[in-house]
Amino acid sequence: MTPRVAVLATGSELMRGRSIDTHLAWLARRLESAGLEIDRHATFGDDLVRITEGIRAGAEASDVVILTGGLGPTEDDFTRRAAADAFAYPLVFLPSAWKSIRQRFRKYRIRMAVINRRQAYLPQGARLLPNPHGSAPGFALDSRGVRFFALPGPPREMHPMFDRFVLPAIVQAFPMRRRFRLWEGKTFGLPEGSVDEIVRPIVARHRGATYGLTVTGGTVNITVRAESGSPEPAARALRKALGLHFVGPDSLEETVAALLARKRKTIAVAESCTGGLIAHKLTGVPGISAALLEGCVAYSNASKTTRLGVEPDLLRRHGAASAEVAAAMAEGMARTAGADVGIATTGIAGPSGGSKNKPVGLVFHAVHYRGRTRVERRVFPGDRAFVKERAANLALDLVRRALLE
Amino acid sequence: MTPRVAVLATGSELMRGRSIDTHLAWLARRLESAGLEIDRHATFGDDLVRITEGIRAGAEASDVVILTGGLGPTEDDFTRRAAADAFAYPLVFLPSAWKSIRQRFRKYRIRMAVINRRQAYLPQGARLLPNPHGSAPGFALDSRGVRFFALPGPPREMHPMFDRFVLPAIVQAFPMRRRFRLWEGKTFGLPEGSVDEIVRPIVARHRGATYGLTVTGGTVNITVRAESGSPEPAARALRKALGLHFVGPDSLEETVAALLARKRKTIAVAESCTGGLIAHKLTGVPGISAALLEGCVAYSNASKTTRLGVEPDLLRRHGAASAEVAAAMAEGMARTAGADVGIATTGIAGPSGGSKNKPVGLVFHAVHYRGRTRVERRVFPGDRAFVKERAANLALDLVRRALLE
Repeated sequence: MTPRVAVLATGSELMRGRSIDTHLAWLARRLESAGLEIDRHATFGDDLVRITEGIRAGAEASDVVILTGGLGPTEDDFTRRAAADAFAYPLVFLPSAWKSIRQRFRKYRIRMAVINRRQAYLPQGARLLPNPHGSAPGFALDSRGVRFFALPGPPREMHPMFDRFVLPAIVQAFPMRRRFRLWEGKTFGLPEGSVDEIVRPIVARHRGATYGLTVTGGTVNITVRAESGSPEPAARALRKALGLHFVGPDSLEETVAALLARKRKTIAVAESCTGGLIAHKLTGVPGISAALLEGCVAYSNASKTTRLGVEPDLLRRHGAASAEVAAAMAEGMARTAGADVGIATTGIAGPSGGSKNKPVGLVFHAVHYRGRTRVERRVFPGDRAFVKERAANLALDLVRRALLE
Repeated sequence: MTPRVAVLATGSELMRGRSIDTHLAWLARRLESAGLEIDRHATFGDDLVRITEGIRAGAEASDVVILTGGLGPTEDDFTRRAAADAFAYPLVFLPSAWKSIRQRFRKYRIRMAVINRRQAYLPQGARLLPNPHGSAPGFALDSRGVRFFALPGPPREMHPMFDRFVLPAIVQAFPMRRRFRLWEGKTFGLPEGSVDEIVRPIVARHRGATYGLTVTGGTVNITVRAESGSPEPAARALRKALGLHFVGPDSLEETVAALLARKRKTIAVAESCTGGLIAHKLTGVPGISAALLEGCVAYSNASKTTRLGVEPDLLRRHGAASAEVAAAMAEGMARTAGADVGIATTGIAGPSGGSKNKPVGLVFHAVHYRGRTRVERRVFPGDRAFVKERAANLALDLVRRALLE
């Protein structure tokens, strides 16, 4: 049997536009990995009556109800009370919950506020779900065939709790056979429409296969879904057709980190307009310290000269945002750091600083590897954050291509 | 009269985690600017029955229903049919809609598919809402006192249509006076419970004022809402009570950038475990190039020595993750860059590299300013991304405090 799943998000910050709900997308992906789909979704402000109604409606129509948020200690954290009301159980004090809350505060030597005691009151019959990454524990409640799970709002607290407690409980409670299989892969350097033109005829040749595309930061993510059988034949054909545009299952930075590790190469990063974002992306990959020697955010011209050895004359003649300076930065970075690969970006992130010949969004990306320096010029249409993101990704992609050649 | 507003999002890509819904947050902010709040929110896959039910339920409980998505020409675009069914009107062919759709295709010389004719069928009585940035027009429908608006899914098409057609229509249909005023401010360095202990009694003393707290990356955001009158008296009392913990209306990096500009000070950033994140945050602020001289991602010990002049002996005796090395990095960074302020971080971001005395999550933060170096040690409980985020924020907060003293 395939359970119907309802996802409820609570928090006035969501209803007031103070934060964006990423739980729906994350939970959808995770549930999908177990062959499950989300059937209903609704968002509620911090309003006891609405949340209670929402839980009741979700429980009536669904087998599984997953609710996020509202587990904190303050007066507008209504999840415990709303669940108790919706399922008609009293709220009771759970000494074990209280103990685990106090332990956490003690461990991290944080002063505990009196109101945290509220978090130890749960609907009767509920099981505490420990929260290793935060002070708000979740809980699970089974009532008349409905499995209800309350999880904290912050993603880094919610995610591990979902994986550890919720997904296994659902899979155990509703034994089902996997309905479909997925394959996912990322491409870089092609617009969505062009990826679609390549993917559509290939997937059409594979019976029972469908696909979807999503775009983030210049990366087009392809998901192939095989209703029966394996998505692998279609995937094989896609990989071949996409050639060097095909990145793989992981992000650009993860792919670059894996290539560097496999080839035992070191790297150093010189950033002007990306301002540390390339280094930040690379240092997000565990184990990168074996390959990444250093990064330099060479924001000023003086910094480009002293740290990277870019000739002042080159800066004067071509300006900081130029192919010549980008190349000199990548070469100087590799040389001064003693690294096998040097990357550099220089350009105009905006909103000001642009001119007719050098508009806002103009970025030069350079990669120096094996005695050769490649430079790519691009104008990115968008705001400062957009330009930084796209330029950082393009630079990483240039490294990926250089390492593959 | 203040209308009750329902927002409905449709699209299987939302329910399957292929894209993240940003409409709720955007619409909330826009509606708030007119003194309106969103009362209900739900998401639906591309399912005619569910969308129809959703519109019906929204219309029963609300005065305004705004629906996004499902206006394209393909078979899974159900909004037109669902709205007709929900309000019990027939779908009729609208020649003016057909004309405007054809015009757009002609203007951009795009080949029009036969199926685009579907988009000219609207519920009887509906008014077409032109879409200057896309091929899918929206529509508006008034039925028994309910104002229904259907807008396309892509944000760059939806946003201008909402501003041009929807918001003015709502404001005109429901004349109301601004109901509430908001004040927002951020604190850093106090856990949510402690902020709550400070805020609660102060807000309670101000009639008609309520508040909410949200937490991101160690920052607690306070929103005070005054139902009548001004939130300013409560805000003044809060600022005073929070003292140096009070950051202001902007993010830590924006606040630091503004302080640097006001005091005409320059800064340079040396990062080990934060790996470029501090520089990335600072370079996200337009105009920072006047203050930020350079950044150094000193990931290797060699880099700490050559770039920042940290004594090799210091690294040997205390290890890279130590108060001594953090201080030497901040001082060396300021000195070698010729900057007024030097920041440094060094620690163990994990997941590996920890030991009993130096656990994963241990970070030393140092700020050098006016001949004085302050170091703060902290153990952050979380994964690599969490440690980086929290350490970068704490370092920025140390700079903020140093500049304020």
